[in-house]
Amino acid sequence: MSKSVPVFKIPDHQVAGHQALNGQLGPLVDESGLFYKPLKGDRGLREADFYKTFLADVRVPDHIRKFFPKSFGTQTLEASDKSGPLPHLVMENLMSKYANPSIIDFKIGSRTWYPEATDEYIDKCFKKDRETSSLYLGFRVSGMQIYENQDLGYWKPDRKLTITYTADDVKLILKKFVSSNQASDFKKEPDCKFASTVYGGSSGILAQLQELKSWFEEQTIYHFYSSSVLIVFDKGSLLEGKKAVPTIKLVDFAHVVEGNGVLDHNFLGGLCSLIKFISDTNKDC
Amino acid sequence: MSKSVPVFKIPDHQVAGHQALNGQLGPLVDESGLFYKPLKGDRGLREADFYKTFLADVRVPDHIRKFFPKSFGTQTLEASDKSGPLPHLVMENLMSKYANPSIIDFKIGSRTWYPEATDEYIDKCFKKDRETSSLYLGFRVSGMQIYENQDLGYWKPDRKLTITYTADDVKLILKKFVSSNQASDFKKEPDCKFASTVYGGSSGILAQLQELKSWFEEQTIYHFYSSSVLIVFDKGSLLEGKKAVPTIKLVDFAHVVEGNGVLDHNFLGGLCSLIKFISDTNKDC
Repeated sequence: MSKSVPVFKIPDHQVAGHQALNGQLGPLVDESGLFYKPLKGDRGLREADFYKTFLADVRVPDHIRKFFPKSFGTQTLEASDKSGPLPHLVMENLMSKYANPSIIDFKIGSRTWYPEATDEYIDKCFKKDRETSSLYLGFRVSGMQIYENQDLGYWKPDRKLTITYTADDVKLILKKFVSSNQASDFKKEPDCKFASTVYGGSSGILAQLQELKSWFEEQTIYHFYSSSVLIVFDKGSLLEGKKAVPTIKLVDFAHVVEGNGVLDHNFLGGLCSLIKFISDTNKDC
Repeated sequence: MSKSVPVFKIPDHQVAGHQALNGQLGPLVDESGLFYKPLKGDRGLREADFYKTFLADVRVPDHIRKFFPKSFGTQTLEASDKSGPLPHLVMENLMSKYANPSIIDFKIGSRTWYPEATDEYIDKCFKKDRETSSLYLGFRVSGMQIYENQDLGYWKPDRKLTITYTADDVKLILKKFVSSNQASDFKKEPDCKFASTVYGGSSGILAQLQELKSWFEEQTIYHFYSSSVLIVFDKGSLLEGKKAVPTIKLVDFAHVVEGNGVLDHNFLGGLCSLIKFISDTNKDC
């Protein structure tokens, strides 16, 4: 019998980053629950390096590893843009266990560049941090989707809008995120029906963010620039009376540098700001 | 009988900011325990405004007010540069109760400018934040003095050096700060004799910084740019077997802006970084 050929496809639930649509280069997933991120250029190599270092780093406590995607080295496969075989970083597909996930990608930090970067890179990032909400809020919404229902599918606001969200915009979408009524309809007041289930409780989003924060108040190993915190729950399942599985994950590690004995005050400040927004939303709901 | 004329003099223990030496414009103190900061230009007016607003702000909890200098409005007196009568901000002289204080002035935040500032001001601050330790550590040492003993007086390292301290430099001076042996002698290993008295305990520097931090994890009223946290204790008294009175104070409010419902993630990140340095020093000692 011949070995079955793995089928790679475009991820269903990618909200930020380069996407493998219309023959572009982007990540692929397979049916076994793996996610393949193409390794092209310096960024790709840096991210692969980070995963390798991180995996072997005994200084990272086990209870913190759950916030990072599992990684399984690299594998060469046909790139999504048909340019030929390309090494890919192999990771768990964070979305494979969700039927209909609602997701927000928060790029954390008022500053997305590290001091040792080139002037050109710093200028580019500095400009974008000022033009988006990063400088003001300590993070920006890099992308998001909210599951509406079987008929309407997902509401995915334009990234050009989400990255410039004001404090009030963020408060509103955090309410919409945990509401049962239509997110895309701005005339509807969000009902916040799922706030306590998703944000609250001992295993909710806030408890997980607090656990991550505690680590950032201690760790001086890594500084995470331009990394994101994803918050996810399975709204589809929740609407059917099944479990929400609220989860946070750290992603995007192409710009992680050594901490050299100093706290990652840029990430920590942004993370505290995000926690405050979610905590206030949970109280207001 | 004629009313006695108040005697104004140059403060004994000013470690940062403009100083009234050699006929320059700077703050003055009197013998009743008051500190007079000259109000010149936009900065002075902004700081006076802040004190006025802050004094009347019912949103600031009482247990947080103790971290701010008491203020008593403005008063016109002869400027220290002999340029004539000038309005001065009247505050408590934070150092009047100390016989021989050791002091460090930490300017908090990896960024000393606010988003709404002019491009010229932003460029100037941005350059300085990159050239000093602000960007790396989340704060910089704006000035300091360590009391040695009656013969040697104070060790006051050059501000040009302190603002560029590395992580290792900061660890070293935090040890020297709480040591009984000569701080200015770099061949002597600091003995950390006063670490637990100054940094530790329920009323030590760390407990006070934690209390301040808790407020910054909640408050969205003010963003403090280019403000400093002073840490002080009376090393002179301690050497005589009297009390150390370890104290933290927030100072310099010429660049405080409204928080508009967002955490001061820039200050909070820097404050967490400073707490980590002091906490590690206390453990190492």
